[in-house]
Amino acid sequence: MIPSADAAITRDDKALILAYDHGLEHGPVDFEDVPESTDPETVFDIATHDAVTALAVQKGIAEGYYPSYEDDVELLLKLNGTSNLWMGEPNSAVNCSVDYAAELGAKAIGFTVYGGSNHEIEMVEEFREAQEAAREHDMSVVMWSYPRGQGLKNDTSAGTIAYASRLGLELGADITKVKYPGSAEAMQWACESAAGSKVVMSGGSKTSDRDFLSTVETAMRAGASGLAVGRNVFQRENPTELLDALEAVIFEEKTADEALGLMPSTNNGRATASDD
Amino acid sequence: MIPSADAAITRDDKALILAYDHGLEHGPVDFEDVPESTDPETVFDIATHDAVTALAVQKGIAEGYYPSYEDDVELLLKLNGTSNLWMGEPNSAVNCSVDYAAELGAKAIGFTVYGGSNHEIEMVEEFREAQEAAREHDMSVVMWSYPRGQGLKNDTSAGTIAYASRLGLELGADITKVKYPGSAEAMQWACESAAGSKVVMSGGSKTSDRDFLSTVETAMRAGASGLAVGRNVFQRENPTELLDALEAVIFEEKTADEALGLMPSTNNGRATASDD
Amino acid sequence: MIPSADAAITRDDKALILAYDHGLEHGPVDFEDVPESTDPETVFDIATHDAVTALAVQKGIAEGYYPSYEDDVELLLKLNGTSNLWMGEPNSAVNCSVDYAAELGAKAIGFTVYGGSNHEIEMVEEFREAQEAAREHDMSVVMWSYPRGQGLKNDTSAGTIAYASRLGLELGADITKVKYPGSAEAMQWACESAAGSKVVMSGGSKTSDRDFLSTVETAMRAGASGLAVGRNVFQRENPTELLDALEAVIFEEKTADEALGLMPSTNNGRATASDD
Amino acid sequence: MIPSADAAITRDDKALILAYDHGLEHGPVDFEDVPESTDPETVFDIATHDAVTALAVQKGIAEGYYPSYEDDVELLLKLNGTSNLWMGEPNSAVNCSVDYAAELGAKAIGFTVYGGSNHEIEMVEEFREAQEAAREHDMSVVMWSYPRGQGLKNDTSAGTIAYASRLGLELGADITKVKYPGSAEAMQWACESAAGSKVVMSGGSKTSDRDFLSTVETAMRAGASGLAVGRNVFQRENPTELLDALEAVIFEEKTADEALGLMPSTNNGRATASDD
Amino acid sequence: MIPSADAAITRDDKALILAYDHGLEHGPVDFEDVPESTDPETVFDIATHDAVTALAVQKGIAEGYYPSYEDDVELLLKLNGTSNLWMGEPNSAVNCSVDYAAELGAKAIGFTVYGGSNHEIEMVEEFREAQEAAREHDMSVVMWSYPRGQGLKNDTSAGTIAYASRLGLELGADITKVKYPGSAEAMQWACESAAGSKVVMSGGSKTSDRDFLSTVETAMRAGASGLAVGRNVFQRENPTELLDALEAVIFEEKTADEALGLMPSTNNGRATASDD
Repeated sequence: MIPSADAAITRDDKALILAYDHGLEHGPVDFEDVPESTDPETVFDIATHDAVTALAVQKGIAEGYYPSYEDDVELLLKLNGTSNLWMGEPNSAVNCSVDYAAELGAKAIGFTVYGGSNHEIEMVEEFREAQEAAREHDMSVVMWSYPRGQGLKNDTSAGTIAYASRLGLELGADITKVKYPGSAEAMQWACESAAGSKVVMSGGSKTSDRDFLSTVETAMRAGASGLAVGRNVFQRENPTELLDALEAVIFEEKTADEALGLMPSTNNGRATASDD
Repeated sequence: MIPSADAAITRDDKALILAYDHGLEHGPVDFEDVPESTDPETVFDIATHDAVTALAVQKGIAEGYYPSYEDDVELLLKLNGTSNLWMGEPNSAVNCSVDYAAELGAKAIGFTVYGGSNHEIEMVEEFREAQEAAREHDMSVVMWSYPRGQGLKNDTSAGTIAYASRLGLELGADITKVKYPGSAEAMQWACESAAGSKVVMSGGSKTSDRDFLSTVETAMRAGASGLAVGRNVFQRENPTELLDALEAVIFEEKTADEALGLMPSTNNGRATASDD
Repeated sequence: MIPSADAAITRDDKALILAYDHGLEHGPVDFEDVPESTDPETVFDIATHDAVTALAVQKGIAEGYYPSYEDDVELLLKLNGTSNLWMGEPNSAVNCSVDYAAELGAKAIGFTVYGGSNHEIEMVEEFREAQEAAREHDMSVVMWSYPRGQGLKNDTSAGTIAYASRLGLELGADITKVKYPGSAEAMQWACESAAGSKVVMSGGSKTSDRDFLSTVETAMRAGASGLAVGRNVFQRENPTELLDALEAVIFEEKTADEALGLMPSTNNGRATASDD
Repeated sequence: MIPSADAAITRDDKALILAYDHGLEHGPVDFEDVPESTDPETVFDIATHDAVTALAVQKGIAEGYYPSYEDDVELLLKLNGTSNLWMGEPNSAVNCSVDYAAELGAKAIGFTVYGGSNHEIEMVEEFREAQEAAREHDMSVVMWSYPRGQGLKNDTSAGTIAYASRLGLELGADITKVKYPGSAEAMQWACESAAGSKVVMSGGSKTSDRDFLSTVETAMRAGASGLAVGRNVFQRENPTELLDALEAVIFEEKTADEALGLMPSTNNGRATASDD
Repeated sequence: MIPSADAAITRDDKALILAYDHGLEHGPVDFEDVPESTDPETVFDIATHDAVTALAVQKGIAEGYYPSYEDDVELLLKLNGTSNLWMGEPNSAVNCSVDYAAELGAKAIGFTVYGGSNHEIEMVEEFREAQEAAREHDMSVVMWSYPRGQGLKNDTSAGTIAYASRLGLELGADITKVKYPGSAEAMQWACESAAGSKVVMSGGSKTSDRDFLSTVETAMRAGASGLAVGRNVFQRENPTELLDALEAVIFEEKTADEALGLMPSTNNGRATASDD
């Protein structure tokens, strides 16, 4: 929210973040449908598309692959994460320091906060340290704001998602990634709650290309500043086509219908996996 | 309590703190009745009123908006807070460091301590660090002293509120914010218990303008040094009028009746929301 | 126990510590009988009596009042404490750092250790840090050694109090404050267990002036190096008279009977409140 | 995965790590069959074999014995470990700092992470510190990636082992040590999941020389970069012969059958102990 | 185990450590039979005997008494300990820092590790810090290795004691103090498991002088490097005589029978208290 704090990972004040932290959060099973997505190079190549304003990965992936892509990709280092082998009250290990992220060339940090979890206090305090260190490095701060845990039943209700985006604003994120709350009105409330900070929609549940692009269009018109997406892109047979379409919707204010025209091979897109 | 330690956020040794941390503590639902209060600019504008000696916000709000108001508003950075998505034993995450608060231009820090909570020990130790760091920066220290949790039933009894204000004195706050304990006598006991340090009343439950101003008048006559108020101000249709009236009661020793005369549009004020 | 480490807060190797931490530990209710004791100035004034070798207060009280008394009172800063709003297994928050205590002019630090509590390990480790930092500042170290918690039934038995004073010696206190264990023999055992370090008796349960002075006389003859007392002094109508009498017993080896002669107004003293 | 980060403990990009941390993890009972293995000198002597690219030991062993072998053995200091006297949810004490490991001459660090344990968060955060410190010292990072604990039933299933090796990649290990998942296909999935980082197989359950070498051959053909082995080597009567054979399979792409020809004394090897 | 690391507290590579931490671990009740042992001077005087290679005490005792004995006694500062007022899962508070121990003139540190306790992880990590700091000060490291807690039934079985001494080796102790495991064979296993590091026997249960010296003789022949003893020495009427006899057995390879000849006053020694 600091003026221009997110300039390095936005384009015309909008963001399309390609997220590739599934190997940590979900394990290799997420790559089974499109085995080549197991290889980070595949995803780094996709991330060179002009529509992608930043690629979000964990430390190990950045260490191994970013040196070959630093001219073509902006790095958003995701600082925390947890395997789904563990199934306790939502929490996330901080597996990379901000100093080290900066050394790896990251322009932004990503940090998950599970509001409402029994670990909210601890996560917010860890976020504080990361956020303030990022400011010293002039890195942008992106919060994955996912209310979850102890007593939260419907974590995509309008009130919960508006609260999620407000947490990003209050705690000092430049961009807050939230789940789509199901309607234009709810998305608008979430975006207004973030006031001068930005909200990006997290890639949603399995839908056709048309439905996916329509949701993105709705979110953009409701005030969203873009999209953070993973499997919905890298698990498609032709990610470039979808990125062309997303570019049209996000950066050129095209409708979903107009954007679909840019996808010759998938005029009636098959269902795609959910993403968070 | 250090001589003049609170000079930057008082006027004639009295304080009117406008608190705007509801987005973190309660969520955007608190802004529903007056939607423009969702936008921090609205509240920063209100805070430019001469009656307001400091505006209390969280880090993210300060980062985004204080740069435009630093000539007209004194910043009190609230260092800890918690979403109400979480419902465990009262506790509060420290989401901003004192050094960073100083960098943002804060003249004072705000810190919640839930005396009697199972987290009292931890919160008091966090307060220690914040308080001592604030002294190094010559920043004033304001404690939100709210006994709450494990076994505390009536947390606004006279004894509890007197204890709350004494905790502020003993632990090194310059100003302690407590709930109104229900009577002039109880308020007087709370103020005497704080000895040379200051006590400000927290905006209370839903009352008419008259009742609200009367309570403030009673508190002031009982020895209070002012008021910390949020929704009772920014959720009104005409916050300026109420601030005019509060200025009369707090700084000019006017009665509530006299002050009401300054509020042409709301001669018989409607009920207002509770505040803490 | 370091030679002369406690010189600043003793007189002829004896100590009379006036303790005034009740506002934190018990709340303002402790001041109800003698309302002027609510005001720290009252107690600082009492502490200027020649018999008082140090005044023990918490950080906030020292910040606000010690600057006016630094020529006439020796400051013992009590570094930890807890409100009795909280009722868990005994523990105590460290609410002041040693560095800050030194900055405030303290000549000694005070630290509670609840031996036998489930928090003993943590408290002893906190004591280590405080004790070693105090050595660097040439400040004296006073331990409030109060076995308490998990499974301890009679915490003033002879064996428990002897253990309490031994803990002070073993862990590096110069002076250890223990409860009176009920007899001259038990007190002697406690004093011998502290070997070359000093033991001071904590002011006891409600007794007449005569009984109180007799207990002090017994403790002194059993090897105690003095007294740490709070309400038994500041809650009396004439604290100066009692201090005169205590001075005679503690520093001049007078009997309780002789000392009572120095208290014209209370020849047959009324009961007084308990103190710890 | 940093280019050449593991050069010091590999040979032609392959590794044979001799592990000797059983005294800590299992106790002296592991040395009973071959009592001379109790003495670290025996194992350091074995480690001078050309096939061994690094010897993994704990701090105390390195302190006492590595000075005599620093010209002939590469030291991999295992930074954490736990006795099996303790039987709680899997966890591991960090018993050596990276700085001290570097001082002892280590070229690499070893670190256990129990993914899925209730201590996963804590272990990953400890791993972060170790990994980043190792980077500063240009030391290689080897993760013992052993999913274990709370709710994990079959910890050598194909999906679990692929996840284990992916965790190594994502979190920044150069080499990840995993258990053999039971088949060539599963091993291949694990190796592909590690992408550009290396996977070494942990010595498995009791088998004949032939079976052991066959498994190693299978793992190598499936993409493994080598082996980490302990008791399967130092508990044999003739460890040198087995190392000759392993060298053939791992570094010279020989088959298990060809390698067995290098083991005259054990043409039909007896069962050997399991290793982890 | 670092060459000569323990030179300052050994004589001809053997050690006789006089331990005097009972005031902390057990309380003054341990001194009741020989009241003069309450006074640290008594024990420091005993420690000037040539047979004693080091005196193990806690910080407070060292502060108060070591300055008078630094020419005649080698100080082993015991860094952790716990009162037996507390009765939870075995743990021990670190009550002295290594830096401060060095300042007090200590040549070695002592540290208890309860292997198998639910606090093993924490204790081993605290030991790491102490051990590495001791290396920087060229101080020797002595581990009190006492498997204890959660599920450990017979903590002096051969396997447990061998494991205890191995933990000392693996974690970086120069000398490991273990309980006598009941037989020459078991003691030999324990000593062999410590390989190049030293094992000293902890003073055992109540026995006559003859039995005590016989056990020491057995331990020495089994490979022990000496003894750590407390009450068995300072609770005797004539500690000097026993130290003469121990000197003969430990440093001069005399038999227990020969050594008894050096104890004219106690030809048939009475039972003595247990020690740990």
